[in-house]
Amino acid sequence: MPEAVDFIDLRSDTVTRPTLEMRAAMAAAEVGDDVYREDPTINLLEKRAAEIFGREDALFVPTGTMGNQIALRLHTQPGQEIICDGKAHILDWEMATAAAFSGCLVRAVPTQDGILTWNDIEPVIYKWGGFRAATGAIEIENTHNMAGGRITPLPVLEEIWAGAKEHKLPVHLDGARIFNAAVALGIDVKTLTRGFDTVMFCLSKGLCAPVGSMLVGSADAMAKARIFRKSLGGGMRQAGVLAAAGLIALEEMPKRLQEDHANARLLAEALNNTEGVEIDPETVETNIVIFRVSNAITEKELVARLKARGVLASSVGPQLVRLVTHRDVGRGDCMRACEILTEEIEAAHTATA
Amino acid sequence: MPEAVDFIDLRSDTVTRPTLEMRAAMAAAEVGDDVYREDPTINLLEKRAAEIFGREDALFVPTGTMGNQIALRLHTQPGQEIICDGKAHILDWEMATAAAFSGCLVRAVPTQDGILTWNDIEPVIYKWGGFRAATGAIEIENTHNMAGGRITPLPVLEEIWAGAKEHKLPVHLDGARIFNAAVALGIDVKTLTRGFDTVMFCLSKGLCAPVGSMLVGSADAMAKARIFRKSLGGGMRQAGVLAAAGLIALEEMPKRLQEDHANARLLAEALNNTEGVEIDPETVETNIVIFRVSNAITEKELVARLKARGVLASSVGPQLVRLVTHRDVGRGDCMRACEILTEEIEAAHTATA
Amino acid sequence: MPEAVDFIDLRSDTVTRPTLEMRAAMAAAEVGDDVYREDPTINLLEKRAAEIFGREDALFVPTGTMGNQIALRLHTQPGQEIICDGKAHILDWEMATAAAFSGCLVRAVPTQDGILTWNDIEPVIYKWGGFRAATGAIEIENTHNMAGGRITPLPVLEEIWAGAKEHKLPVHLDGARIFNAAVALGIDVKTLTRGFDTVMFCLSKGLCAPVGSMLVGSADAMAKARIFRKSLGGGMRQAGVLAAAGLIALEEMPKRLQEDHANARLLAEALNNTEGVEIDPETVETNIVIFRVSNAITEKELVARLKARGVLASSVGPQLVRLVTHRDVGRGDCMRACEILTEEIEAAHTATA
Amino acid sequence: MPEAVDFIDLRSDTVTRPTLEMRAAMAAAEVGDDVYREDPTINLLEKRAAEIFGREDALFVPTGTMGNQIALRLHTQPGQEIICDGKAHILDWEMATAAAFSGCLVRAVPTQDGILTWNDIEPVIYKWGGFRAATGAIEIENTHNMAGGRITPLPVLEEIWAGAKEHKLPVHLDGARIFNAAVALGIDVKTLTRGFDTVMFCLSKGLCAPVGSMLVGSADAMAKARIFRKSLGGGMRQAGVLAAAGLIALEEMPKRLQEDHANARLLAEALNNTEGVEIDPETVETNIVIFRVSNAITEKELVARLKARGVLASSVGPQLVRLVTHRDVGRGDCMRACEILTEEIEAAHTATA
Repeated sequence: MPEAVDFIDLRSDTVTRPTLEMRAAMAAAEVGDDVYREDPTINLLEKRAAEIFGREDALFVPTGTMGNQIALRLHTQPGQEIICDGKAHILDWEMATAAAFSGCLVRAVPTQDGILTWNDIEPVIYKWGGFRAATGAIEIENTHNMAGGRITPLPVLEEIWAGAKEHKLPVHLDGARIFNAAVALGIDVKTLTRGFDTVMFCLSKGLCAPVGSMLVGSADAMAKARIFRKSLGGGMRQAGVLAAAGLIALEEMPKRLQEDHANARLLAEALNNTEGVEIDPETVETNIVIFRVSNAITEKELVARLKARGVLASSVGPQLVRLVTHRDVGRGDCMRACEILTEEIEAAHTATA
Repeated sequence: MPEAVDFIDLRSDTVTRPTLEMRAAMAAAEVGDDVYREDPTINLLEKRAAEIFGREDALFVPTGTMGNQIALRLHTQPGQEIICDGKAHILDWEMATAAAFSGCLVRAVPTQDGILTWNDIEPVIYKWGGFRAATGAIEIENTHNMAGGRITPLPVLEEIWAGAKEHKLPVHLDGARIFNAAVALGIDVKTLTRGFDTVMFCLSKGLCAPVGSMLVGSADAMAKARIFRKSLGGGMRQAGVLAAAGLIALEEMPKRLQEDHANARLLAEALNNTEGVEIDPETVETNIVIFRVSNAITEKELVARLKARGVLASSVGPQLVRLVTHRDVGRGDCMRACEILTEEIEAAHTATA
Repeated sequence: MPEAVDFIDLRSDTVTRPTLEMRAAMAAAEVGDDVYREDPTINLLEKRAAEIFGREDALFVPTGTMGNQIALRLHTQPGQEIICDGKAHILDWEMATAAAFSGCLVRAVPTQDGILTWNDIEPVIYKWGGFRAATGAIEIENTHNMAGGRITPLPVLEEIWAGAKEHKLPVHLDGARIFNAAVALGIDVKTLTRGFDTVMFCLSKGLCAPVGSMLVGSADAMAKARIFRKSLGGGMRQAGVLAAAGLIALEEMPKRLQEDHANARLLAEALNNTEGVEIDPETVETNIVIFRVSNAITEKELVARLKARGVLASSVGPQLVRLVTHRDVGRGDCMRACEILTEEIEAAHTATA
Repeated sequence: MPEAVDFIDLRSDTVTRPTLEMRAAMAAAEVGDDVYREDPTINLLEKRAAEIFGREDALFVPTGTMGNQIALRLHTQPGQEIICDGKAHILDWEMATAAAFSGCLVRAVPTQDGILTWNDIEPVIYKWGGFRAATGAIEIENTHNMAGGRITPLPVLEEIWAGAKEHKLPVHLDGARIFNAAVALGIDVKTLTRGFDTVMFCLSKGLCAPVGSMLVGSADAMAKARIFRKSLGGGMRQAGVLAAAGLIALEEMPKRLQEDHANARLLAEALNNTEGVEIDPETVETNIVIFRVSNAITEKELVARLKARGVLASSVGPQLVRLVTHRDVGRGDCMRACEILTEEIEAAHTATA
């Protein structure tokens, strides 16, 4: 188990630790029993999240997975299908809960770069009839984790919202990193998510809260979501201690995401100049860098060598390595990581040349 | 609703009606209460099915869907994944029951021709760990309906059986039309299915029984399958009336499938000689013909025009038409269908030329 | 396995075998593909069932369990509760499918005699809120199998229908033996079931069809039910062979149920005159007799001794034996069964005196 | 929404707020990413919980409901039954999740005082066969919330453990308040829970942590539990902030529960001396007091009048009121509550005399 202080940890932005301000806020938080709706800090956080996203209501959940799965349950009936991109988090990283809790199959549509368009979606919409399971919901992930933090642009979303509306199909946003998209595009999250029926976003990850995500939507949807949260065991009591950190994450931290994006671009550029690496720096739009290493070394071996040098990275597929920038890795750390990455990849390349 | 007598019905082999022999057998069937295991005709049919497939036991089920879904439930835990081809019947035509009843997602792997190989399967096998849903089972469809009745050859199956065994993963065969594969290959079904943990095959379809499919496997698996059949509402009482027809289907009807294959090839050859049709007759190995029509006419419009001429066909995708040969459509019918198909397609083509 | 010809089989009315008329009808049945809605005999049976019950539509299902479970799925959402009597078939004999397929718990209310009243139901109705699972549906079983074929009278039903309507809760009838209730009460089934949202009744059991039950309700409910039937693997093809027998069961057989009731009463009276038996013949309203034997003999031992004498009965609990009369056990058989029952019980009693 | 500072809040021990020590510990907590198993504070808490309960491993979960539902999922298969008392928390207050997530029905056995014995359990154990759903697990709640904090004594548990072992059935403890039972009995929790396959206990409630419960059991069970926790959306990241408070709850707070018990007894004695109240003070063994008020006033009205006087209580059924003592209500508060309770109940009684 790596001691975080010594490593430049680029595995994920999930490793971010709470700021000192957050810690102080947690210690001082005014709390109550949130199952009774009496936790003032939770109530304030939910109010602020709803305001910022321009929605009637919001719900605090312990994880993004719970937020997504509640939304899928909200929008579907058992025996339906959920349309999403072929590398979506809800398909690959949420333990098949769409099936186990909502009784739905996922209709995965392969895309080049995680950007699902209405042209991808429309042909796989089915109505409930005698032969095929009906489409229950459409799901979009923005930014897209496994596509390297790619952003689905607003016009693409607008087309999806319009099409879905015509088909009377709900659309959920897995916006675990929607603030990264908003900051990169220079569009506020309210505008960028206004056509979704529900939006989940994380207070952890780049926003640095220790625990917590939010689901936002209509008052009616959130009332039902609260019930499903209880079903899933997410109805915590004095959750205000978490909300206190969450409020800081929500209000203060989005403004710092640009640093992470700049650092990711730094890494991408360095990699682009390294022999044996395949990457298009132009596609590094936010805080995630996924690159392909040549067969001179397996990605698992490279990850191991980087770790030996003090840099933590993730293997995310054959020859694919992921780096994620975040608050606990500064500019200097990233510059150092560039050096180590370049050295190790070139060494591997030279060895086999 | 078409009156079957007047139409050349090539929509599906599910439309086959029981033979006179079957009708007589049904009328004379010795029956009992099968939930009490006292229906002698059911008992005989299950015994014979087990023998023919070289298994310990068999179970009569009202539909192939029920047989498949029982098998998936047998082999998996909720929260797991089932690997299959991207056009598998269990993915597209069984109402998302893998999710709704077994709580599993389907991990669909796109293939060119419905032939899933070990090379397709191995990279998407996951172990149960902290991040991804584990693979629970592998499913093969042979012949493959939506791939145009394509056969997965024995060597491909043998590699899958060996690989799955190494990974301790169960493999289920959706063998709705396994007798078509066996007849076409000249290999008996026992040999062709020996490495599967469970096999479902249909007594209806090409074998002409009015109702019924079988699941075969180990005694232990079949004991559990009987319980799941009851759960799904498939525990019928004097089902011997159906088994009487099923026995004839099982014993007598496989030998006639070659006719259907010859008729399918006839249709394929005719289509191959028709302008505006894309088809490779070499891929028509059994009783299903799927062809692509040029943009001169939509497949829906073509199906409508064929119907007006007395030929029933199915639309199975954009520009894709399916024809299925079976006992209720003789050689003469097929020759007539060839003429009408050719005329209608060429007329469409000429009109737009 | 008992050969039915030799035994007086009073275990259940599920053992009834098709009549000669039914067999002839099955052999001659006009059939088509019912998944395509083209089986004329199924279509006729569904039309007639709907007419007789005064409903918009009906659906043929292979078993009563499937009919009940489709109805529960129709009326509920996962995470809700279904209210029923504490010995209901859906609670005890349907393999927990209410949970496994519909995701609902059963809220079982103990009753004296299987007759659930509005007074039993109202206190356990919950609304969906933050703390308790909401009531999704109410279920009534009439006649009630495990309560000894007891009838819930029309006024009791009327109060339930009114109460449920006020609470906007759907009510499903498990009317596996509703014709027994109707005949015993002299009320037609349409009147006796008019306030239920859905009704399941069996063509098998006392009505002697080999296989099959019906679900009746609104056109919209039946359209959805058809989808759920497919999910459960109940979408059979040439099911007209079963419907042909079912039509005779539906049209001709209700009129003969009075014989079964008279025979049940005969058995009850004889048992009432036997030392060591506890039974109130007044409660034997239809074709089921449940009696308690004194501790002179266990009910399992009694069932074994009866079997040795050629009479088949069921153990349905500690010291509880069930006898069910039906068409395959005539008046003479029942008289003979009375003698044997009396002899065996009195012998046991004498031995321990 | 009541401001907790002004009210004597006897609704539940779930309202307890973290101590100053806990707040300080949260602010200073060493944290990491617990999904990667790198949160040192979580790791320590899990280690200590396992030690204290004499188990191989433990798992932190956000709520008791999640802990219970993970355990039920661990021990069962869909289509099985879970045996518990008729007023169990898993039956009445967990949103039917046993059905929705595990696909199991609850087989509820009514008891007088929430104390389920082997004699209650054994008759409703079923094996998986052709007719009934099999028993998958047995669940015990100790202390029993809705039975007024009653304790199931060790000898009763020992008989259950022995019986279950013989039947090879797993037994789960909902020990949300097991420390209350242990303190009241003067038996350590390890001894009091040693025969259970899994134990859930809460760090919140009487132990005052703001959020969190633990599941303990074998290493293998906990490895699977971790997967199901992820499925349910309970895989939090820097959860060490909660574990820091949890460690204090676990190590320091059990010793203070005796105060709560003494206060509950004080309330019970006062109520016992009040006209129009039905209560047996001898049954008030821990920190929960449930009493019945005479028909002079409904329990809802009484709760409203108490609230107007500054005392919060819960209605838990017709004429039934629940009071729960905890750290945030001191001896003086309880004495004051006694006065107000007596005054209000006697006033109601006098008014109707």
